[in-house]
Amino acid sequence: MATETTQPRRARVPLNGVDTPTLFGTLDVVKGQPELAKFQFRARNRWQSGTLSETTIESFSGAGAEHAHKTTFKMNGDHPAVLVGEDRAPLPIEYLLHALASCITGGIANIAAARGVALSAVESHIEGDINLLGIFGMSKEVRNGYQGIRASFSIKGDAPPEKLQEIVEQSRARSAVFDVLTNGVPVDLAVNVG
Amino acid sequence: MATETTQPRRARVPLNGVDTPTLFGTLDVVKGQPELAKFQFRARNRWQSGTLSETTIESFSGAGAEHAHKTTFKMNGDHPAVLVGEDRAPLPIEYLLHALASCITGGIANIAAARGVALSAVESHIEGDINLLGIFGMSKEVRNGYQGIRASFSIKGDAPPEKLQEIVEQSRARSAVFDVLTNGVPVDLAVNVG
Repeated sequence: MATETTQPRRARVPLNGVDTPTLFGTLDVVKGQPELAKFQFRARNRWQSGTLSETTIESFSGAGAEHAHKTTFKMNGDHPAVLVGEDRAPLPIEYLLHALASCITGGIANIAAARGVALSAVESHIEGDINLLGIFGMSKEVRNGYQGIRASFSIKGDAPPEKLQEIVEQSRARSAVFDVLTNGVPVDLAVNVG
Repeated sequence: MATETTQPRRARVPLNGVDTPTLFGTLDVVKGQPELAKFQFRARNRWQSGTLSETTIESFSGAGAEHAHKTTFKMNGDHPAVLVGEDRAPLPIEYLLHALASCITGGIANIAAARGVALSAVESHIEGDINLLGIFGMSKEVRNGYQGIRASFSIKGDAPPEKLQEIVEQSRARSAVFDVLTNGVPVDLAVNVG
């Protein structure tokens, strides 16, 4: 088949729990209608008490339509006791590490499936170093955020080591969260009082 | 008291659910031993199936010691159906919006308490625009991550509007997540195969 000759790496069966035929179908549709690629994601947050707040995520727009998530997702953020909170939820800054790990891992599964590689395991450890002298306003030389993040991925699957390595690298190269964390993004902040 | 004269805005009683005396005590300790301000946060993630993965957050270091969170926190990331996932959890990129909202909101509660302002409500809406042509590899001009984030905070409390506005602004100015998202951070990624 001509299609297979020109796209030899495209596996046409579901793999790794990824619906590969639908994935390629989606990409083909977007190629024909690039405006479908515009998405907007949203979160709303409500302060609870102390450093505890709750975020609700339920809708987004994209592919030319409004979408509701299957479930309304709720999540909290808090500070641990050593930072004068009650440790009822992860720290906001810890969620950045989760976002990075889960973005690259989801990409690995998609890319491996697209390349016909069956995965048996993907694990990662992420660490972020932060010096709170910045947040505490005690040093102008110290930034508020992480000074550096280290991510370590382990991957196992039915492909040679160099192919598995390439899959992780390609996922990093196409990761939305990796891009935001390493390159930054403009954030506009408006305040309504009263 | 001399202390009150030199630090007139320091409220010495708990407020907004914030243990203000402990907060100021912590800051005083760190002033004397700045090395206590060094923290490391950690997450480990395990791929489940398709784009679903699970993150575990349970320990961190800081204030010169190792700490276990009161609870072992688990959270998932997934893709919605329109992005060929099963929508079992928020998207990784949505967690960035939660991290931003919860970081600034926790800071607002702390700063308001420190300034003796009782809050009655803090709510926020965060939106991020992303064009998936970047991730899909269909345009070299389009970045992978958000092109812009808009955050809108509403705050109510027993202070004049300008004071409430200043509290939000100060929280933004000291937010670890705002710093990371707007300025970026170096991320090292290692891969172990096999």
